[in-house]
Amino acid sequence: MHAVVRRPGQLTYEEIAEPVPGEGQVLVRTLACGICGTDLHAFHHLGGFLDGLRRSGDPLPTVENEPVVFGHEFCGEVLELGPGTNGRFAPGSRVVGLPYVTGPQGAEYVGYSNRFPGGLGERMVLTERLLFAVPDGLSAEHAALTEPLSVGAHAVERASIAGPAVVVVVGLGPIGLAVVAALKARGIGPVIGMDFSAGRRRFAEAMGADEVVDPAVEPIEAVWGRSGSGRDRRPVVFECVGRPGVAQEILSTVPRRGLVVVVGNALEASTLDQVMAFNKELDICFSSNFTRREFGETLRHIADGAIDVSPLITAVVRPEDTPAAFEALRDPESHAKIVVSFT
Amino acid sequence: MHAVVRRPGQLTYEEIAEPVPGEGQVLVRTLACGICGTDLHAFHHLGGFLDGLRRSGDPLPTVENEPVVFGHEFCGEVLELGPGTNGRFAPGSRVVGLPYVTGPQGAEYVGYSNRFPGGLGERMVLTERLLFAVPDGLSAEHAALTEPLSVGAHAVERASIAGPAVVVVVGLGPIGLAVVAALKARGIGPVIGMDFSAGRRRFAEAMGADEVVDPAVEPIEAVWGRSGSGRDRRPVVFECVGRPGVAQEILSTVPRRGLVVVVGNALEASTLDQVMAFNKELDICFSSNFTRREFGETLRHIADGAIDVSPLITAVVRPEDTPAAFEALRDPESHAKIVVSFT
Repeated sequence: MHAVVRRPGQLTYEEIAEPVPGEGQVLVRTLACGICGTDLHAFHHLGGFLDGLRRSGDPLPTVENEPVVFGHEFCGEVLELGPGTNGRFAPGSRVVGLPYVTGPQGAEYVGYSNRFPGGLGERMVLTERLLFAVPDGLSAEHAALTEPLSVGAHAVERASIAGPAVVVVVGLGPIGLAVVAALKARGIGPVIGMDFSAGRRRFAEAMGADEVVDPAVEPIEAVWGRSGSGRDRRPVVFECVGRPGVAQEILSTVPRRGLVVVVGNALEASTLDQVMAFNKELDICFSSNFTRREFGETLRHIADGAIDVSPLITAVVRPEDTPAAFEALRDPESHAKIVVSFT
Repeated sequence: MHAVVRRPGQLTYEEIAEPVPGEGQVLVRTLACGICGTDLHAFHHLGGFLDGLRRSGDPLPTVENEPVVFGHEFCGEVLELGPGTNGRFAPGSRVVGLPYVTGPQGAEYVGYSNRFPGGLGERMVLTERLLFAVPDGLSAEHAALTEPLSVGAHAVERASIAGPAVVVVVGLGPIGLAVVAALKARGIGPVIGMDFSAGRRRFAEAMGADEVVDPAVEPIEAVWGRSGSGRDRRPVVFECVGRPGVAQEILSTVPRRGLVVVVGNALEASTLDQVMAFNKELDICFSSNFTRREFGETLRHIADGAIDVSPLITAVVRPEDTPAAFEALRDPESHAKIVVSFT
């Protein structure tokens, strides 16, 4: 089959071996797959990304210098059921699912494995019990966004914003936009989106942000000052930039007793000033994942229109154009999410 | 009046000017005052302590090289009401209170101010509206511990431990013991106390810890492993050591999705590994203070016996022996809290 293969410093669309479904796995034909910001980072810095996961106790067997097929935001069509599956999804069913697969060396991330090609290949093997049926009428491109939207849903669930709050979302790339969507789907707000890019601010408005701010015009301190945050309206900030130093900058500027939800993956070594967080009595909630329940709920939200993902998709490209799409995504003005279509 | 005066490198019991109550303030005769671990640190490193507060946005006017009278864990007797007070406490009333005083340059910490001597002096001025009456029958020494015990109450309230949890308290000095007391007073547990010191582990047992562990014998990883913490019982750890590096060590060893409550003040520059916290999806709650409500509730708990503070007090000394008490407190085996008595 063909797949977009990552090797150190190169990304090529080439022929690779067919995956074969093992115990509890199904073989799936990829219909659509989103390109994630983590893929962009991992293309250049896969070693550091893997090191961070291992340092956190994740025994993943992926090796930096071996080929990897990225792609964990996928929608596929079931082709074949492996041994030990229970037949929940007949061949021909369209599915999305949590991007993990259980292999002979334990669970691995679909899309960050040397053994299990991700959604930037024509076919994948996936764990049957982690899959969800895609409702009729929902396009494969929209369904593929269940995964990144679930990251936003999980961050909002993890934040447990109970009472009145002023919510600022810093960074309006796909993750920030997913957080905006999840907040609005739950009636939490006002939601103030911040990004230096006018294009991204427009995407946030389309996703329902109550207000957008250009930090070059109004710094976050001023936003806190005028937004009525304080004792009666808790300041809550979602860090969705995922660059080293940004979370620390947010810690410095958030008012006392604020809640900082770190959703952006800084990926490279980054530290936070413990003494400042202590003196300001902050809560810091780190959110990097999602649950099965949140994934299913997000899929329903997309299917029933509670979340409209169409503003997020700024291009649909062919698999062979994926390397160019990785380049194009460096420009925050014109792109939110690029989806690779295999149909 | 006499007071224990801190100057860089020295602590002396000497004559200083009488404080005079200003607007909304009362003059109080100190009855008893506890010595806090932060006092020990600030004796040697007041500059760094003040810098940390300023970096966090606290505009405090205290100057390192000017004299400071420590003492924020006090019980006193009202001597005189200043202008603009409402007479809630008649002269002769015994009071405890939140250690802040509003002066001409804004609010200051009683005990870390150049202008307002703390409870290691014979007399203090205090803000009337921050005071609470000490119930009859409660000794001044026990009442003085309302402040450090409130730090524990606040940390437990901030942690918002809703469901089943395994709670480990790391560091069984006065703050760790206050956390143990607050957890037990709220029926949260099991509470596992950890400290290298056998003396401190005995104090924790006296304060109600369900189990105590010597980390030299059983590391915290092993405690998590055998304690049944996990999906159904959330791992919760209170960091009550307050030395640089300890919170980070706890981040490294706590299981995924754990809650780390940082109650110990690391005081010196300390950082946390953001990528590890992200990959493990931790919650970090920083707790450095307490509210009026928590202070009042803690006073009631001490008065009605829900919290027995007597095991905490390992010595009662005369004011002139305070410098020796600062020395003695360096030995974790024999001391938890030393209270200075002025009666």
